[in-house]
Amino acid sequence: MVYEQWKGFVPGKWSAEVDVRDFIQRNYTPYEGDDKFLAPPTEATKKLWQEILVLSDKERKAGGVLKADTKTVSTLVSHAAGYIDKELEKIVGLQTDEPFKRALQPFGGIKMAEQALNMYGYEIDPEVKEIFTKYRKTHNEAVYDAYTPEMRKARRAHILTGLPDTYGRGRIVGDYRRVALYGVDFLIAQKEKDKALMDGDMTPDKVRDREELAEQIKALKNLKKLAEIYGKDISAPAGNAQEAVQALYFGYLAAVKDQNGAAMSIGRNSTFLDIYIERDLKNGKLTEEEAQELIDHFVMKLRIVKFMRTIEYNALFSGDPTWVTESIGGMGVDGRTLVTKSSFRILHTLQNLGPAPEPNLTVLWSRKLPRGFKEFCAKLSIKTSAIQYESDDLMRPEMGDDYCIACCVSCMRVGKDMQFFGARANLAKCLLYAINGGKDEIVKDKETGKPLQVSPEFSPVTGDGKLDYEDVKHKYEQMMDWLAGLYVNTLNLIHYMHDKYSYEALEMALHDTNVRRFFATGIAGLSCAVDSLSAIKYAEVYPVRDEDGIVTDFKTVGDYPKYGNNDDRVDEIAVWLVKTFMNKIKSHYTYRGSVPSMSILTITSNVVYGKKTGNTPDGRRAGEPLAPGANPMHGRDCCGALASLESVAKLPYEYARDGISNTFSITPQSLGKD
Amino acid sequence: MVYEQWKGFVPGKWSAEVDVRDFIQRNYTPYEGDDKFLAPPTEATKKLWQEILVLSDKERKAGGVLKADTKTVSTLVSHAAGYIDKELEKIVGLQTDEPFKRALQPFGGIKMAEQALNMYGYEIDPEVKEIFTKYRKTHNEAVYDAYTPEMRKARRAHILTGLPDTYGRGRIVGDYRRVALYGVDFLIAQKEKDKALMDGDMTPDKVRDREELAEQIKALKNLKKLAEIYGKDISAPAGNAQEAVQALYFGYLAAVKDQNGAAMSIGRNSTFLDIYIERDLKNGKLTEEEAQELIDHFVMKLRIVKFMRTIEYNALFSGDPTWVTESIGGMGVDGRTLVTKSSFRILHTLQNLGPAPEPNLTVLWSRKLPRGFKEFCAKLSIKTSAIQYESDDLMRPEMGDDYCIACCVSCMRVGKDMQFFGARANLAKCLLYAINGGKDEIVKDKETGKPLQVSPEFSPVTGDGKLDYEDVKHKYEQMMDWLAGLYVNTLNLIHYMHDKYSYEALEMALHDTNVRRFFATGIAGLSCAVDSLSAIKYAEVYPVRDEDGIVTDFKTVGDYPKYGNNDDRVDEIAVWLVKTFMNKIKSHYTYRGSVPSMSILTITSNVVYGKKTGNTPDGRRAGEPLAPGANPMHGRDCCGALASLESVAKLPYEYARDGISNTFSITPQSLGKD
Repeated sequence: MVYEQWKGFVPGKWSAEVDVRDFIQRNYTPYEGDDKFLAPPTEATKKLWQEILVLSDKERKAGGVLKADTKTVSTLVSHAAGYIDKELEKIVGLQTDEPFKRALQPFGGIKMAEQALNMYGYEIDPEVKEIFTKYRKTHNEAVYDAYTPEMRKARRAHILTGLPDTYGRGRIVGDYRRVALYGVDFLIAQKEKDKALMDGDMTPDKVRDREELAEQIKALKNLKKLAEIYGKDISAPAGNAQEAVQALYFGYLAAVKDQNGAAMSIGRNSTFLDIYIERDLKNGKLTEEEAQELIDHFVMKLRIVKFMRTIEYNALFSGDPTWVTESIGGMGVDGRTLVTKSSFRILHTLQNLGPAPEPNLTVLWSRKLPRGFKEFCAKLSIKTSAIQYESDDLMRPEMGDDYCIACCVSCMRVGKDMQFFGARANLAKCLLYAINGGKDEIVKDKETGKPLQVSPEFSPVTGDGKLDYEDVKHKYEQMMDWLAGLYVNTLNLIHYMHDKYSYEALEMALHDTNVRRFFATGIAGLSCAVDSLSAIKYAEVYPVRDEDGIVTDFKTVGDYPKYGNNDDRVDEIAVWLVKTFMNKIKSHYTYRGSVPSMSILTITSNVVYGKKTGNTPDGRRAGEPLAPGANPMHGRDCCGALASLESVAKLPYEYARDGISNTFSITPQSLGKD
Repeated sequence: MVYEQWKGFVPGKWSAEVDVRDFIQRNYTPYEGDDKFLAPPTEATKKLWQEILVLSDKERKAGGVLKADTKTVSTLVSHAAGYIDKELEKIVGLQTDEPFKRALQPFGGIKMAEQALNMYGYEIDPEVKEIFTKYRKTHNEAVYDAYTPEMRKARRAHILTGLPDTYGRGRIVGDYRRVALYGVDFLIAQKEKDKALMDGDMTPDKVRDREELAEQIKALKNLKKLAEIYGKDISAPAGNAQEAVQALYFGYLAAVKDQNGAAMSIGRNSTFLDIYIERDLKNGKLTEEEAQELIDHFVMKLRIVKFMRTIEYNALFSGDPTWVTESIGGMGVDGRTLVTKSSFRILHTLQNLGPAPEPNLTVLWSRKLPRGFKEFCAKLSIKTSAIQYESDDLMRPEMGDDYCIACCVSCMRVGKDMQFFGARANLAKCLLYAINGGKDEIVKDKETGKPLQVSPEFSPVTGDGKLDYEDVKHKYEQMMDWLAGLYVNTLNLIHYMHDKYSYEALEMALHDTNVRRFFATGIAGLSCAVDSLSAIKYAEVYPVRDEDGIVTDFKTVGDYPKYGNNDDRVDEIAVWLVKTFMNKIKSHYTYRGSVPSMSILTITSNVVYGKKTGNTPDGRRAGEPLAPGANPMHGRDCCGALASLESVAKLPYEYARDGISNTFSITPQSLGKD
């Protein structure tokens, strides 16, 4: 396969079959210098960005949503071309036919789509509602059809939280670079080949796989049509940097037109794009100003990706995040850095356009990153507080050097892995269930008015005596057995339905056909549960019962070691808890042969989860926030920053490969003397 | 469970859980008398039937379709109440809001629905077309998405024929009696219980089963609504004969509103209904005239069930059959006959209303049937030629005494078995493939213009010498291996998609949840293939090749024994062929743990299949019909009727449990002297 558009590129495996990493490795130019080469925004960029700021301001004043489509169901080809300012835009394409006009995306759930519109004063078109009620079943309806009563109770009581059952699951990252490198016709031909090879006994799995491939091919054909709507042809490979950025963006735009996912991350693109920019620069076809302009315009488009969501959704996520995560930098497995000038250019958008939460610019940090890049990152972090860091050194051995971050911490090899995203199990609340035999400490049975029995009726702690650590631990293990099984099966059900009713055909078309799937579970309330266990073990904890006999409070006498102080006595409990729960998760059947993984990650939703959790033995009061992610409970890490970090660092990454988050605000004093 | 409506019935197992057979066994009144008790049609019946005849005449004059709905998608509750003559009708309910107005049923395939309308001069509503193209995928689209190239070729070449891939599969018979006996609320409660028990690991099968149950429950709720549209309440059991017939009919009406299946049979109802009629007669609440009127009006409704189908479909089935098969009579396993007065009453409709092909009144024949009933059947057969007979003595040992016939010969236990209906493999054509190494003798490759290679390139017969029987048989076995595998997998794929996109929720709601599924295959061209093998074995058959080297004709020298003459030399080949092909079918994975079965059954479509089959070694010319079902080839059975029947009777029923058909026209001479 030789395309004119590939002139100047070193050929290799990538020239014969889809292999973007191979293309990058053979063609990219590592950059070890500083940021002095960077160009300021062009006039067009400044003007365009100003127009966006005006629209953003209008949107805020309008109460959060400026305009919403109530009639046209969003598909790849549903809308005419839309522009912010057609004359100025180097990279074109909007989710609808107007900027800041939210798209209507009912495949995940018509109720959610309708509620979101209503909350902002819009009415859904009655015909669309009828179609998605009478003829086209949605993911949400199907999940609720199949839920067991126990799943519904666990959901209502919030021991399982954030289940993607009313909206798109997200966290699937297409390899949008493929659109630029190969052109869509090549990608279609590859998928046709894969489909031809998929023969043999037509088991349900095989039939499903063949149908999915057919849907992927249709999506790719529609991707070409989407480009045509904007007067572009992306059937062949991109021939220059402008075409490469545009084609890549069309791939991503198609994804967000197709899916309103909980996180719509974009991958790891800057070093890939750098190859095109370098070639154009070398050939005198592009200046640094023009190169930066392409990246600035690209990033502007990513900044205005918007979905129509309910106010509760936004409350859970503390805003209206889209998680357009772009992973930057990192080291190659051959020892060369993957930092290029375009790694600088994309971070530089934080200066050219000013700071912004989206796209979620994430630096894959390694000790070996070039000093110039490290310094640039440090400078920008100080200036904008808008960079996220993840440990490349931790992830690279497992994932190689072409992975990216989906959402905030989940790493996946681009185009080779996907994830079944899966909410969280509240382990602090689970401990209360262990003590109360599965009766909820807050939620009442609607019929009897008595505490809701959520789990089977396991034996509770009886009497008012001091809680016995071994007894509670034993009961906790049993309750986690139940919870892990219920959790996995709830997700099995949800993901089966998502595949059936809201399959991400376009995103999956930009993955290898034989993709690795992760089954992503998560836990919340780790430090609260750990400190509670520590209190029971090292102090004296007495149960306090309400009129129903439910333990709703605790009297804790004496002190106990707290997680976050590098104290093995309690940190070992944290390690035990993470391992124990993950092992229970792993013991269950997981959908489509997916690989179980776990995250300890609640960056904002810990507040909401805490509201649904009663008083805990560690002294935390009912309704107070849990700590985010793997953080120690607020204010309990009293031995300094290093000790706090040491505690977190003990958690075994192999048991929580989907990511461990530690939200850490640092003041100059924390770093010690100069 | 005790309902007021059950007063006078002997209670039993059936009173606590769904068990219609138990109800019948405890409550029915066998009838061993003659037909003298039967009543003529009432004035209302005569008038109503006259109105139907007028409409039928109008329909014929309009070219086959009187009126068609082009806009309202048929569901259980899509239409307002419709009547032929509201004042006269004892049993109400039409498929749409007007008699003879065909419903729009696009779930099987929007293309088929549109084509059917176009053929009769109607235009589908563009909005409906858009919905079923853009938002709601149909069974047909999904099947074609997943088909392999080989499946498409086999379909195009007609070695597999009549695959239910563009329309509803049919042949699923709900137990409509349950609606009358239990009322819908009880049935819903039972399904809710079943759903609650369906717990454990949420494998795809489990999730699918739970979702299907949810759909069944929704369908039952809509069934109640359908009755409400006609001002009836079927939530509770039927309280008298009129309510019983009406409730049962609503169940069936809901099925035909939901599904345009290739055969929509109704089950085995007359003896069940007789129990209600007997009770009312005994209590003086009903006269014989009124009883007959109920049955006449019920049958009238069944006679006017109509679907919107294409002209090709009608050509394949020689008309526009609905296969509303009602199974009548038979013997109980306890030795009592299942014939009741209502078995007479339903057959009597052929006299009161005159003969008609639908409902397909099928007598389950046993030597032990009461003489009076036998004589009545004989009399009506002579008078109307409108009764089908099937051997109860053959089926009862396998199926018990509460089975029914779906379509024309497939037996299934009512409400306990269902069938994945599956078209036919053309074994005569398969023999030609064996000789030509899988190249079609008629169909050309669209690109090369050369004979289409349908199977893998197996080694063909070479040279022009006399065909060697063992060599051809060996090649035939290999080709059947391939064909059986392809056939089973094509059906696996089709039925997966039918479940996914056009699930028969209402019909399955009237089945036990743990239903037994049959995987129904079929063969065509049996006698042609058998005679061809006999010719190769016992005469001398020389291949004649065309310019492509394909054997397109045969020169047969000498005579050979022909199937249909009770000659073991050839009849053994027939037995071998049936057993061999069925064993190959059984060796493959079949969808949802279904039990493979086979039919030798082509009552009319043998003509179409023959058109697609080239010259055969038995001397049959290309395009000439194959024999129907298991019939000997036309005119070759020359040793009398008995010898012909003896040949057919040798075919092993255990290998073709889905039914063996023998179309047999009898003249007085065939029966010998008086």
